[in-house]
Amino acid sequence: MTRFALTIEFDGGPFFGLQRQADGPSVQQSVEEAALAVTGETVTLHSAGRTDSGVHALAMRSHLDIAKNIEPFRLMEALNARLRPDPVAITHCEVKPDDWHARFSCIGRSYEYRIRNRRSPLTLERGRAWHVARPLDAEAMHEAAQALVGQHDFTTFRSAHCQAASPEKTLDRLDVTREGDAVIVRAAARSFLHHQVRSMVGCLALVGQGTWRIEQMAEALEAKDRSALGLNAPPEGLYFVKATYPEEE
Amino acid sequence: MTRFALTIEFDGGPFFGLQRQADGPSVQQSVEEAALAVTGETVTLHSAGRTDSGVHALAMRSHLDIAKNIEPFRLMEALNARLRPDPVAITHCEVKPDDWHARFSCIGRSYEYRIRNRRSPLTLERGRAWHVARPLDAEAMHEAAQALVGQHDFTTFRSAHCQAASPEKTLDRLDVTREGDAVIVRAAARSFLHHQVRSMVGCLALVGQGTWRIEQMAEALEAKDRSALGLNAPPEGLYFVKATYPEEE
Repeated sequence: MTRFALTIEFDGGPFFGLQRQADGPSVQQSVEEAALAVTGETVTLHSAGRTDSGVHALAMRSHLDIAKNIEPFRLMEALNARLRPDPVAITHCEVKPDDWHARFSCIGRSYEYRIRNRRSPLTLERGRAWHVARPLDAEAMHEAAQALVGQHDFTTFRSAHCQAASPEKTLDRLDVTREGDAVIVRAAARSFLHHQVRSMVGCLALVGQGTWRIEQMAEALEAKDRSALGLNAPPEGLYFVKATYPEEE
Repeated sequence: MTRFALTIEFDGGPFFGLQRQADGPSVQQSVEEAALAVTGETVTLHSAGRTDSGVHALAMRSHLDIAKNIEPFRLMEALNARLRPDPVAITHCEVKPDDWHARFSCIGRSYEYRIRNRRSPLTLERGRAWHVARPLDAEAMHEAAQALVGQHDFTTFRSAHCQAASPEKTLDRLDVTREGDAVIVRAAARSFLHHQVRSMVGCLALVGQGTWRIEQMAEALEAKDRSALGLNAPPEGLYFVKATYPEEE
């Protein structure tokens, strides 16, 4: 068996998420079915992150084990040919050691959350960004975000369905910048709780609109209570952008 | 009657073009029907450019005349409400003098053409960029493009359906830059012939792939013959980005 690491880009819109779901299409199912068609083998795709329905990836990292003798580039090309017309593309493929694991070897995950802040509805970015019509103060959002950086109990920003053993996480970065009428939130951590990024972004938007004071972000964190959550941002603005591995540092 | 200037953003994918067509949906029809619903008036939308089926706009400039007494901001909001779910949005609306004309007062037009240059199929940018799998030399493309800048007979780069009186145009700018795996072509002129940008980009891609020598771009221009055209780039990579008016300079 050879372990192949894949870099996967996908439009999350038509999927129920990255992981296999009993009730609808998933990116995992698309890739596993493509691999079956290419190799005749039933494989399992393991990935660095677990993304929800509607969440996108620019560079998800995954792996699968294949017995068939095939070069990485040929495997990438064959998978891409079979993945059509699903909006999923393998953008890189390489052989990794058998003990390399897309999820368990990963030491860092980065997300971007894209907000378009304007009165008018979205056209070209529909389904690719969160449309917020009320003006956002990106500087206030950035200031509020800094209260979340570091090691904390993120219970407030955790989905009821989260399966993590502990609500303690260390957030390495939570930056908010304005680029024209786009407001971009960039988050990095070793790992995140379920819904953590969307929950943090939702509350930051409340600060940006002036609905919350800047200090309320720290108060929500300290509450360690899901009912202190102000707003969960919708999935269509969220992009998984990078997974980091020790040997690639 | 009051003349309202509109700035319009649209995803050209579902439309047969900006102008009204007998055989399919157009942006013009969507906006005129929204205006009828808002004002009860049958209006005609005039626009700076005429874009083909599948071509997008980030900031088309248009105008229409309305008798009803309405503030520009309220008109914008009402049109946007009626335009849903079409991927068309009014991003700005203002009153202009009666002699201001979106098409005839326009003294400059700018387009961007977006190429994604990689092996893998597109996912999030499907329908939003031209996918070119063979490696492109953007520097060679830029060098070749400079032969087209200036006043020339652009017959080679003109659609058979072009209605312009003369094939003579002055191209102010044709820049090619690489941004990661994106290759962006930026074109500016007072006006363009039908299919001119797509025809120029198609030939530039031949240069970028090494199929054409750099000098063949100048030779194709000098041929003044449509049959010298190498390739017409597909519409989905093309964006109308700016119309310039004397009073806004």
